[in-house]
Amino acid sequence: MVIDTATLLVSCPDQQGLVAKIASFIYSNGGNIIHADHHTDLEAGLFLSRIEWQLQGFNLPKDLIGRAFNAIAQPLKADWQLHFSETIPKVAIWVSQQDHCLYDLLWRIQAKELKAKIGLIISNHEKLASIAEQFGIEYHYLPINNSNKKEQELKQLELLKKADIDLVILAKYMQVLSSDFLQNFPNVINIHHSFLPAFIGAKPYHQAYSRGVKIIGATAHYITQDLDAGPIIEQDVVKISHRDTVEDLIRKGKDLEKIVLARGVRLHLQHRVLVYGNRTVVFA
Amino acid sequence: MVIDTATLLVSCPDQQGLVAKIASFIYSNGGNIIHADHHTDLEAGLFLSRIEWQLQGFNLPKDLIGRAFNAIAQPLKADWQLHFSETIPKVAIWVSQQDHCLYDLLWRIQAKELKAKIGLIISNHEKLASIAEQFGIEYHYLPINNSNKKEQELKQLELLKKADIDLVILAKYMQVLSSDFLQNFPNVINIHHSFLPAFIGAKPYHQAYSRGVKIIGATAHYITQDLDAGPIIEQDVVKISHRDTVEDLIRKGKDLEKIVLARGVRLHLQHRVLVYGNRTVVFA
Amino acid sequence: MVIDTATLLVSCPDQQGLVAKIASFIYSNGGNIIHADHHTDLEAGLFLSRIEWQLQGFNLPKDLIGRAFNAIAQPLKADWQLHFSETIPKVAIWVSQQDHCLYDLLWRIQAKELKAKIGLIISNHEKLASIAEQFGIEYHYLPINNSNKKEQELKQLELLKKADIDLVILAKYMQVLSSDFLQNFPNVINIHHSFLPAFIGAKPYHQAYSRGVKIIGATAHYITQDLDAGPIIEQDVVKISHRDTVEDLIRKGKDLEKIVLARGVRLHLQHRVLVYGNRTVVFA
Amino acid sequence: MVIDTATLLVSCPDQQGLVAKIASFIYSNGGNIIHADHHTDLEAGLFLSRIEWQLQGFNLPKDLIGRAFNAIAQPLKADWQLHFSETIPKVAIWVSQQDHCLYDLLWRIQAKELKAKIGLIISNHEKLASIAEQFGIEYHYLPINNSNKKEQELKQLELLKKADIDLVILAKYMQVLSSDFLQNFPNVINIHHSFLPAFIGAKPYHQAYSRGVKIIGATAHYITQDLDAGPIIEQDVVKISHRDTVEDLIRKGKDLEKIVLARGVRLHLQHRVLVYGNRTVVFA
Repeated sequence: MVIDTATLLVSCPDQQGLVAKIASFIYSNGGNIIHADHHTDLEAGLFLSRIEWQLQGFNLPKDLIGRAFNAIAQPLKADWQLHFSETIPKVAIWVSQQDHCLYDLLWRIQAKELKAKIGLIISNHEKLASIAEQFGIEYHYLPINNSNKKEQELKQLELLKKADIDLVILAKYMQVLSSDFLQNFPNVINIHHSFLPAFIGAKPYHQAYSRGVKIIGATAHYITQDLDAGPIIEQDVVKISHRDTVEDLIRKGKDLEKIVLARGVRLHLQHRVLVYGNRTVVFA
Repeated sequence: MVIDTATLLVSCPDQQGLVAKIASFIYSNGGNIIHADHHTDLEAGLFLSRIEWQLQGFNLPKDLIGRAFNAIAQPLKADWQLHFSETIPKVAIWVSQQDHCLYDLLWRIQAKELKAKIGLIISNHEKLASIAEQFGIEYHYLPINNSNKKEQELKQLELLKKADIDLVILAKYMQVLSSDFLQNFPNVINIHHSFLPAFIGAKPYHQAYSRGVKIIGATAHYITQDLDAGPIIEQDVVKISHRDTVEDLIRKGKDLEKIVLARGVRLHLQHRVLVYGNRTVVFA
Repeated sequence: MVIDTATLLVSCPDQQGLVAKIASFIYSNGGNIIHADHHTDLEAGLFLSRIEWQLQGFNLPKDLIGRAFNAIAQPLKADWQLHFSETIPKVAIWVSQQDHCLYDLLWRIQAKELKAKIGLIISNHEKLASIAEQFGIEYHYLPINNSNKKEQELKQLELLKKADIDLVILAKYMQVLSSDFLQNFPNVINIHHSFLPAFIGAKPYHQAYSRGVKIIGATAHYITQDLDAGPIIEQDVVKISHRDTVEDLIRKGKDLEKIVLARGVRLHLQHRVLVYGNRTVVFA
Repeated sequence: MVIDTATLLVSCPDQQGLVAKIASFIYSNGGNIIHADHHTDLEAGLFLSRIEWQLQGFNLPKDLIGRAFNAIAQPLKADWQLHFSETIPKVAIWVSQQDHCLYDLLWRIQAKELKAKIGLIISNHEKLASIAEQFGIEYHYLPINNSNKKEQELKQLELLKKADIDLVILAKYMQVLSSDFLQNFPNVINIHHSFLPAFIGAKPYHQAYSRGVKIIGATAHYITQDLDAGPIIEQDVVKISHRDTVEDLIRKGKDLEKIVLARGVRLHLQHRVLVYGNRTVVFA
């Protein structure tokens, strides 16, 4: 059974009565809360909250909820987002030459583990076009070189806009996005194939091998203009030993990358992640 | 800086307005919530909540909070507990012949990782008396055999009562408590040296070895009258290989037992665990 | 660069000189060992070993190696297997209605993470036939009911024989194999969706949920006539909380199942697993 | 039952016949191998091996084994170490103000989990002297400041020499050792309170908190002249969330530090670690 819900994500300066005010708004309009989680960062003086309630029996029509809540939010100086479970987000998957994360995401969306529609796949290589075809999804080949990056990014932005994309997933895209791009489209999740902040930059498995670590990791994070330094959503690790070559690290890492990226995307799609500063609150 | 707080643990049949009513009770009396977490078990139709707020500036005197909240709780058919952070719980540690969990708990309490006072140590062996002495704690040697269990349990209950004990920690006590005992003193946490429900009963490491598992575990749980079947608070595991003998499993298991028991006790002492049926909600 | 190698798996009663004799056999014939691992089970009085060496420069022709080694093995009362890296094993994947392990194995074989040829897919349902088609693999629909199991197993055995299958992978096949079948085809790896021996039998995630555990697991094991009791090759776990419904356990479990099954199959395909009694030695 | 054994650790340029030659040396002298593990780093062209055999029935007297093996080792250009299980290594524990690793090591040595004798404790603070007294161990208070480091290190070296110390364990010593010191005493294991190479240097938990990671770690490594860059023996991690403050990271980290340091020390004391370049082979 699917329950139709609304979800509020709120962040505001900490003060008395926040839970009471938000919960009362929902209760007084006839809503039944099915998930409520709050966090206070005492150091930052910030209150962050996620509340999800059933729309059935709720007395406000959907198009008025935001306006009504804004009347409460404004005096609290609150930032807020309102999401409806029946609105399925639309994603673009960006890939380069490796197919493991792409296959994994396509399978999860097809299996309804991830509730999303796939608008399109963008790649700087032609290599994975056949997978897109296999799953019946648009594939846009936009090769990047030293001189054409700016114009290609404009085409990418146009494609995202036309397809009404909510989220870009960098599924081993291996290219840096420019500040201009991110200002125009800030919702980008990346999988970095290391346990950040260890092994920032290129070839992290080679770096890990040469440092002789006993554990490797992967990190799903939002992209910001500072490479590999964006807010972290999810991380996981796997043990390795002296028997593992660089090729073994790459192989073991692929399983991590798939799972960590999928978990990060899922948390985002369910509106469970709030970013503040360079940190995330994950209401899992 | 230590903040003086009150914590409410509430469970009641699910219905509209629960978060609003509890939060409004605190807000209307001038309290500032610093931790609020809720869970709805849709299948069981149960709402469970933990709310912690600062007492500074709260307008109700501490001895009236319970009575005032009861007026709200009764119509909701809610079970509730109220705890104050300044009340340090008093624990009894029960041991048999192994000292690793005892040392670990004593260190954690001494280091203030666990906020508790140790009232006494009870053991069915004399072996660990010197450790009690080393830390300046009462040690009661109450040997158990087939014929004296009932009378020894009466003595144990008397000791717990006299010392005003809130929680018994079975730190490898290796003895079954009777139903009579548990009816008189239900707050008992045990560490079982397996990943329950695998390897219930005696010698779980020998069982694990002979089954040839690749992972072993430990489980902190409340004791109920059904042996090794009480509500689980915390579990953890460690990988093993064919190179590990039974002695290695026991050694590796000790590290798990210490950490899992300490985590379980900490969660309980911070009033983060709610039991319903045979399950726990852990507001970690 | 791919190195052509031979691998010996040896198990025999423990006695002096075993490593020396096996290593000298390889050295005296001009072989260079690239992997050698041994294990002595002192309790069982058993020596187990895996030695892999380069065939380049080895003076014995491949078809004589076995016979020559047998002269050494016989007086030691050793069981032994000889495998050549250039012989790619042929597997059959058996499925029921769930596709996650099937997709995962197909991807890993296609990506050459698993070095195997897929001979055929067998299923008691028609549901996954389209995936077989997508990857260009034979799909045999052999429905099982209470009255036809014996005759269907005969057909299955015939298919395995005709396709020269080395290993059957039960990728969520959800059916018990008969003793007769296993006597005719003993090389079967299964993925059980629990941390065995916890939650033997049907619906382990429902069992795990109702027991209220805080960790779930998956187990790759060889099938024996005693259901869910065969030798364990690999296990892994993931943490869960009170927020996870049975559906969440199933979803999280799928990731475990995929990875644990793939690891178990990989270890088998690389001839890294030796079974003795109900245990495995895994020379990872 | 304790078995008297000898252990050879060997590393040499890879070439044919190494396993055969070493194993034959032991066999021809009547030894029974109970543990043999080898590793070939194909890239570095290096062979590394650990072989342990029973001394009972071995025909060479202990004081001749080394000389006899040297005749084999020299033509192979092999580095080697020979250790006897009856020789219990002597360690010095160096601490600063935190007691958790010290207590943990003392308990493990007392419980015979770690087979070592404790020669002395050295600290730059007086704070933990009472723990040394409690366990009846010499405590040397050698405060370090900007001007006296050189002379204090000379005293430290003298103490180590006089007490015949084999291994220094930096159990949260929080001071850098000079190159001079390390040239005179190179056997030093440190516990770094992060998942190296992330968060090198001071206050790694504060760094981890401010970066917003979702996992923290600890690393046991040999000390080299390059701070926090020595060969890693063991690492482990624990998950954290937005609810964890810096204090929580420190608390959770302590459990990691204790376990990771104890594992690293145990592996070293059992002569299971071989260092080459900046890497370790751990024959666990």
